[in-house]
Amino acid sequence: MTQTRHRIFADLYKDSVELMQIGAALRRRPGVEEASCIMATPANLAQLRDGGLIVEIDARPSDLLVVARGDPDACDDAIAAADALLHAEHAASHEASGAFAEPLTSIAAVLEREPDSDLALISVPGDYAAAEALKALSLGLHVMLFSDNVSLEEESAIKRYAASRDRLVMGPDCGTAIINGIPLGFANVVRRGDIGVVAASGTGLQEVTCRIHNLGAGVSQALGTGGRDLRDEIGGVTMLQGLRALASDPQTRVIVLVSKPPSSAIASRILDLAATSGKPTVVHFLGSEADAMRGRELHAADSLAQAADLAVALSFHAGREFADATPADGLGPDEEVLLDGIAPGQRAVRGLFCGGTFCYEAQLAFVRRGLRCRSNVPVHGALPLDERSDDHAFIDLGDDQYTRGRPHPMIDPGPRNAAIRASARDPAIAVLLFDVVLGYGAHADPAEELAHALADAQRDATRAGRRLVAIGHVCGTDDDPQVKAEQVRKLADVGAYIAGSNVQAACIAAHAALRLRHA
Amino acid sequence: MTQTRHRIFADLYKDSVELMQIGAALRRRPGVEEASCIMATPANLAQLRDGGLIVEIDARPSDLLVVARGDPDACDDAIAAADALLHAEHAASHEASGAFAEPLTSIAAVLEREPDSDLALISVPGDYAAAEALKALSLGLHVMLFSDNVSLEEESAIKRYAASRDRLVMGPDCGTAIINGIPLGFANVVRRGDIGVVAASGTGLQEVTCRIHNLGAGVSQALGTGGRDLRDEIGGVTMLQGLRALASDPQTRVIVLVSKPPSSAIASRILDLAATSGKPTVVHFLGSEADAMRGRELHAADSLAQAADLAVALSFHAGREFADATPADGLGPDEEVLLDGIAPGQRAVRGLFCGGTFCYEAQLAFVRRGLRCRSNVPVHGALPLDERSDDHAFIDLGDDQYTRGRPHPMIDPGPRNAAIRASARDPAIAVLLFDVVLGYGAHADPAEELAHALADAQRDATRAGRRLVAIGHVCGTDDDPQVKAEQVRKLADVGAYIAGSNVQAACIAAHAALRLRHA
Repeated sequence: MTQTRHRIFADLYKDSVELMQIGAALRRRPGVEEASCIMATPANLAQLRDGGLIVEIDARPSDLLVVARGDPDACDDAIAAADALLHAEHAASHEASGAFAEPLTSIAAVLEREPDSDLALISVPGDYAAAEALKALSLGLHVMLFSDNVSLEEESAIKRYAASRDRLVMGPDCGTAIINGIPLGFANVVRRGDIGVVAASGTGLQEVTCRIHNLGAGVSQALGTGGRDLRDEIGGVTMLQGLRALASDPQTRVIVLVSKPPSSAIASRILDLAATSGKPTVVHFLGSEADAMRGRELHAADSLAQAADLAVALSFHAGREFADATPADGLGPDEEVLLDGIAPGQRAVRGLFCGGTFCYEAQLAFVRRGLRCRSNVPVHGALPLDERSDDHAFIDLGDDQYTRGRPHPMIDPGPRNAAIRASARDPAIAVLLFDVVLGYGAHADPAEELAHALADAQRDATRAGRRLVAIGHVCGTDDDPQVKAEQVRKLADVGAYIAGSNVQAACIAAHAALRLRHA
Repeated sequence: MTQTRHRIFADLYKDSVELMQIGAALRRRPGVEEASCIMATPANLAQLRDGGLIVEIDARPSDLLVVARGDPDACDDAIAAADALLHAEHAASHEASGAFAEPLTSIAAVLEREPDSDLALISVPGDYAAAEALKALSLGLHVMLFSDNVSLEEESAIKRYAASRDRLVMGPDCGTAIINGIPLGFANVVRRGDIGVVAASGTGLQEVTCRIHNLGAGVSQALGTGGRDLRDEIGGVTMLQGLRALASDPQTRVIVLVSKPPSSAIASRILDLAATSGKPTVVHFLGSEADAMRGRELHAADSLAQAADLAVALSFHAGREFADATPADGLGPDEEVLLDGIAPGQRAVRGLFCGGTFCYEAQLAFVRRGLRCRSNVPVHGALPLDERSDDHAFIDLGDDQYTRGRPHPMIDPGPRNAAIRASARDPAIAVLLFDVVLGYGAHADPAEELAHALADAQRDATRAGRRLVAIGHVCGTDDDPQVKAEQVRKLADVGAYIAGSNVQAACIAAHAALRLRHA
């Protein structure tokens, strides 16, 4: 015999995630056909009736209602279980809040006790959400509006009010966000990092942040805007605010923007702002292919996954200098120990390259950081080589002047190794930067001779009371005749830091140069 | 006592890579201070004198000269060793060429014997290189010009002549290329794949192709243009040709363009063409930051490494549907076995999603491939849901109509699992596409119940003489409360293919749909 049973918990408020979880638990109980656990608002009661859970009750919107249909005993047990769960949750949240002797029933009361609060998470039923959001905003809080069933007119009004007070409204129907590492709503456990995400899409935000984590990178901030933010009626208010916030956030080096199919006018306005953010920005607006991208720092992604992939590709060089370098003696180039043992007066980086483009790339890393440098093949912003100068110097040993009557240094590493040994006698040199190029045609074992030269140079420097920091990169693959992994190992064995790319090696050297300048 | 010894090998030609390697080997011999192994051109002889190897000899440019300075006995031994190396190389190359009884001394002679040849690799001294290049071009060959010391005027003339005959000149001073998987010059051993590279930079090409390989992707073609191709005097002739070739090459899905610091006018012309290539194109022109990018398929990279990173990120979705899917029962979704056991009449894909954006993304994957599909939340190009239709259908179970009085399917997977079981009764359904969303707030173990539903559906389908292909994706991390790896394992254990992303799952399903349409 099927019956419907219910219980009203007067003036008990629970957020909708908790209520949904309890409802699902009840439905899983044997003998229960259907069950629900809701705030007794008129809209929710109407939905109950539509869902076939007919209850004629006298409840107020501030009451909590548990309903179950099925075997009568099972229903009674389910309602008792709900009671226990509701009070267990209640006890737990009291325990978590510690000092709170009385339940807090208003935003103002919380703010009195916790004046540093700056964000309100609102998950009351939609009918009340707008009022609560405006209250929170008027008290100076940012708002995450988990509630759905907020009208477009209300959303627009709330967001415009918020913008006028320089506050952010994430939502409505904002399922997820990660603020300062704290997950809100439906959020995943992801590493903190340098990629900031603003998404008008709940699962879009989850997919992008998870994939960033799974690729080894991390998230600075993840802001949900609610799925309708890029509609004409709303105007992208929250995404524009979020974009500005990420553009000025020092922890964010790469920005990702995601939206459900947007209004093309609003998408266009957001792209215009994104083009001026000064940070590499990946954009994935679903189903919106027509828009041209503006400027070299904007990247259009073709899917959520690709948005994450591009962001991770961009974040690498946007600052993760010290990541992914191959450990030497079991240690990567820890920033703190990188320059241990460097003597006063050791200030200069000397780059000795076989590859001409590697020499250019290293110079650019220095020029971009405002570091004065010289080269036999100077890029724009670098100076010509001057042997008497103590400036940072980058030498392309494959340039004509060094290869007259001699083979290219990729084939004959002799001249480069001689230059490395000579650098030990120059008291101004602190860092040696080098490349090793493998492949067909190249020397059969360049690392072997280079490692000897580096060891000799280090020994001579040590005798003179100095230390040389050797930073390099091996261009090649493990399928090359020389086997990259073996070449890397030989160099790491003599204490060299081997970066994952030439630009990473150059960035680590530039970082060292900046520290030495200020030492 | 230091002496200089030499030997002339009359009319013996060796390419400069071989000569440089032999010279380097001689210099490593004990007692040898300096040594060289060159073609006896006037320029080379002048360089020898500049390098301090003074030899007054009567040699012709077609002769090969070996010179050594140092201990006289050591020099004699070195020259004897050179003789042996030159003839060992000679014998080896004869052996390699097999049929060739006589040494081939002209391009025309080679073409007579090997009429299918279509590329000449020219590494004669620069003084002769232009003439040889023009000869090869006039015979209809493409040219890789390894030689350096070719003047800008000659380069321009050769390239313009080549372009007029629709032939490619890679070089001069082109150190490296990989054509149809064959490495030329200094080249690394890299996997074949879908990324095509054109580079006005030898080591730039090596760094990008190696990193693409090291990241697990591969190279379709790698074309060197010579480092001066983007100067005003040359006009980017070869890069423009290479770009057009890659744009029309079906094996190439992503294009990378690299150059040493270019002329900004030429860079601009190349970007204009690249914007119309119809393929995602990554551009890294060193030291050239001012240029705005044009169009959504152009991506500016900040370094050689980032060029590779972006290309790999872009190549993933440009077609590698079947890569990186998690193996089920030890096998990935092998295209050949994907649809084994599908019965006639099984044609439709049914997508059942918790995440609204995942539902959009799946529809877009179908719409882009011209596949007719329906949804309760249709994207542009999709149709509204029609329960009577056999079209592909994508249902967002988190949409309002399904959540009245019920929690979101991320919390309560019941309705989705019921829909999966029901799909076994529909003879038109071949493929089930699904998402699983983990994280705080979501169900504690969604894969457990989903796996039961999938197993039940498969059993019922089998009884009816059909098979269901289950393709899904788990959005989450291993740090999530549900632990992504464990959730994936539970689904793989019941034979589901779990892709690395939602879009990948959707692309595999779309691929299946296309095959079923043509089956």
